[in-house]
Amino acid sequence: MSFEDLLPQVLDLAYVEDAALDDTALETAKLSFYDWLVVSCAGSAQPLAHIMRDFIAADGGAATATVTGTMQKYPPRAAALANGTISHALDYDDTHFSYVGHPSVAIFPAALAAAEERGASAADLCAAFLRGAEASCRIGMVLGRRHYDAGFHQTATSGCFGATVAAAHLYGLDRPTLTAALGLASTRASGLKSQFGTMGKPYNAGIAAANAIEVCGLARRGFTSAEDGLGGPQGFVPSHHPQHSDAALASQNKFLFTDVRHKLHACCHGTHAMIEALRNMKVAHGLTAATLAGLTMQVNPRWLKVCDIKTPRTGLEVKFSYAFLAAMVLHDIDTAAYQSYDDAVCDDANLAATARKIQVIGDETINDGAVALVGETVSGSQLTSEFDLMAPIDLAALAPRLVAKASALIGAAKAEKIWESMTSLDRVKAAEIAQHLQS
Amino acid sequence: MSFEDLLPQVLDLAYVEDAALDDTALETAKLSFYDWLVVSCAGSAQPLAHIMRDFIAADGGAATATVTGTMQKYPPRAAALANGTISHALDYDDTHFSYVGHPSVAIFPAALAAAEERGASAADLCAAFLRGAEASCRIGMVLGRRHYDAGFHQTATSGCFGATVAAAHLYGLDRPTLTAALGLASTRASGLKSQFGTMGKPYNAGIAAANAIEVCGLARRGFTSAEDGLGGPQGFVPSHHPQHSDAALASQNKFLFTDVRHKLHACCHGTHAMIEALRNMKVAHGLTAATLAGLTMQVNPRWLKVCDIKTPRTGLEVKFSYAFLAAMVLHDIDTAAYQSYDDAVCDDANLAATARKIQVIGDETINDGAVALVGETVSGSQLTSEFDLMAPIDLAALAPRLVAKASALIGAAKAEKIWESMTSLDRVKAAEIAQHLQS
Repeated sequence: MSFEDLLPQVLDLAYVEDAALDDTALETAKLSFYDWLVVSCAGSAQPLAHIMRDFIAADGGAATATVTGTMQKYPPRAAALANGTISHALDYDDTHFSYVGHPSVAIFPAALAAAEERGASAADLCAAFLRGAEASCRIGMVLGRRHYDAGFHQTATSGCFGATVAAAHLYGLDRPTLTAALGLASTRASGLKSQFGTMGKPYNAGIAAANAIEVCGLARRGFTSAEDGLGGPQGFVPSHHPQHSDAALASQNKFLFTDVRHKLHACCHGTHAMIEALRNMKVAHGLTAATLAGLTMQVNPRWLKVCDIKTPRTGLEVKFSYAFLAAMVLHDIDTAAYQSYDDAVCDDANLAATARKIQVIGDETINDGAVALVGETVSGSQLTSEFDLMAPIDLAALAPRLVAKASALIGAAKAEKIWESMTSLDRVKAAEIAQHLQS
Repeated sequence: MSFEDLLPQVLDLAYVEDAALDDTALETAKLSFYDWLVVSCAGSAQPLAHIMRDFIAADGGAATATVTGTMQKYPPRAAALANGTISHALDYDDTHFSYVGHPSVAIFPAALAAAEERGASAADLCAAFLRGAEASCRIGMVLGRRHYDAGFHQTATSGCFGATVAAAHLYGLDRPTLTAALGLASTRASGLKSQFGTMGKPYNAGIAAANAIEVCGLARRGFTSAEDGLGGPQGFVPSHHPQHSDAALASQNKFLFTDVRHKLHACCHGTHAMIEALRNMKVAHGLTAATLAGLTMQVNPRWLKVCDIKTPRTGLEVKFSYAFLAAMVLHDIDTAAYQSYDDAVCDDANLAATARKIQVIGDETINDGAVALVGETVSGSQLTSEFDLMAPIDLAALAPRLVAKASALIGAAKAEKIWESMTSLDRVKAAEIAQHLQS
């Protein structure tokens, strides 16, 4: 195994000039920032958010950085820990499928805390985030599926390095200091998938962000570390079950971050292509629950074990039920609102009747993130619709969808207010934008 | 692999009644407490100690827990981070060879911070430490050499679980809450050996201690985690290259902690048996550098690659040189004082002349921690001496040696003062003993 190339590539990325940042990637990063603010606000009332705020309040300390759900400010590390955890509470944040992780919830909390400490602008925050997210993607792709299958949660592990790159950029660390910070991140990074289904999962995002602030804070003050803790002998990558045997994947020129996907529905990401394809079919043909005779979905067989619960018994199980989710779309229930996933949904006879009209078929020729629908109406027409989550995104079309999601989560007024502030990122401090998180 | 037995065993250990704690193990724990206080004070002026104090001072916060080298108190997590790091700065703390780790530097900082927060007595602190250290030893032995060789530093990884057990005992966590804390520790624990030779190594001890305070603080407030994050599917042990395929090693009845060994010389632990054997030979036969004609050492061959530098060029290399260390003993240079390892030692012609009389031979029949010496005097007498670090320790004989080490490190007055306070552990608060760390 040879990963000595990885650290130089990550460092080069960290010092890319602003002018050399990919425009599409930067626009995508700004949409991720909006989406992260929204899911943070939406997660703010969750039980784990109260626990986190209570925990950091007991320690107290310098009132430097904004924390979601409170007017009280806290030291940057504490803020990063709390904000990372709270923003991942609803599992409604963005996903990068290639590196198998959630970039925003690990990186924005660290970048925001560093930006507030340094008085940076919101635009600088987004540009620093992009450098970090890109580093996470590349390291995460080298770690790959084997790392994930061994039990590690890339959001936390690879995310810690990206969060460190982002925070270091805002702190203005030079190359040797960032090298030390990444070395310390290597011995600090952790996060296991066995936490899924518990508060430990969102905690993993907070861990990554808090670690980044800690290692930058130590490195800035002259703390030393291994010359290459990331890819060197017994460094993080070789000791954590990497998928690949070298760092080749990290050397790509294009910005991989652009392939990030934002969740537009508060259910299993494996069902989203189906929901999009069905929404398109509804719009194109005026289909309703009443006019549908039958619907066949072809999906990649791997999803049959994940999100094909035929008779869900709880709101949570509905999130993993192709048939019930399709019925919700046909009955005009908002799949973007997490409040829609009430246990009562399972007892709705109309939904159940529509769900019974739906058949799910595994087909190896269908891409992982894709779906092919064939519907028949009561009048005998045949309708088809296909969707692939991995197809390139039209950012202009995505933006209003994210605002609609935000409206479903935090109300239209606040969704619009945060959206408006996205138009002036280069003119305001990150701390000013962060005020949206406070209430 | 099957590690489902591990967590119940660790939990049982955590709730062992005080009366059921092994007396010898408890006495050993108290000596470790003394030794930990001493190496903490000795490390207090190291560059990393200044950086750590500056780092936590920037965050500030509740003045709850003592930090080495300052009168200012800090939040428990910050104190644990700083104290763990500072106490491992000189690499002069105790070692448990079977689990390949340093128990005191990971566990005492967490236990002390928790004890100060709760107003616990120093005796309760030591009893909680013992439970935690025993848990670390057993988990560490299951992780074993394979975990270590894969790149992990048991002091930090297994140490995090022991620190969590110790802190949880002082916080009075019940079994379900400690289960959650250990689950969170499982996703939080980290630490790599590639940091050796940098400040990242002592940082690993601070990481373990700080993690313990954090996960106890969250679990106490109701934060949830995996049912068995330690040994369950994709838990910490199965995902981190364990040596053993089951948890059998964890189920021993005797207290493994009793096999801890305290460093009495400020050099590589692989040379300590030789130093002890040679000191005994000196005392028994009045041997000096002048009366020695030649000396042959038989050691386990694995040490030849570690500490048989024939011509050291720096004080650091002297710490890994059998011949020079033997010469220092014969010339009455104090091997316990880290100040003795000056670069100038390498240029001392008398030492070099004595060192040239020494021959080191690898012998597979010699135990890992043992040595056999054969000396010849200028008058033709043949002298022999053997020592095995793993032979049972006479605690009554160890105590004055630890005080002598302390005197070499922090001066006789302070060494005695701390030693006196060890006689009243059950009558004073942990916070009172901690005052020794402040100046």
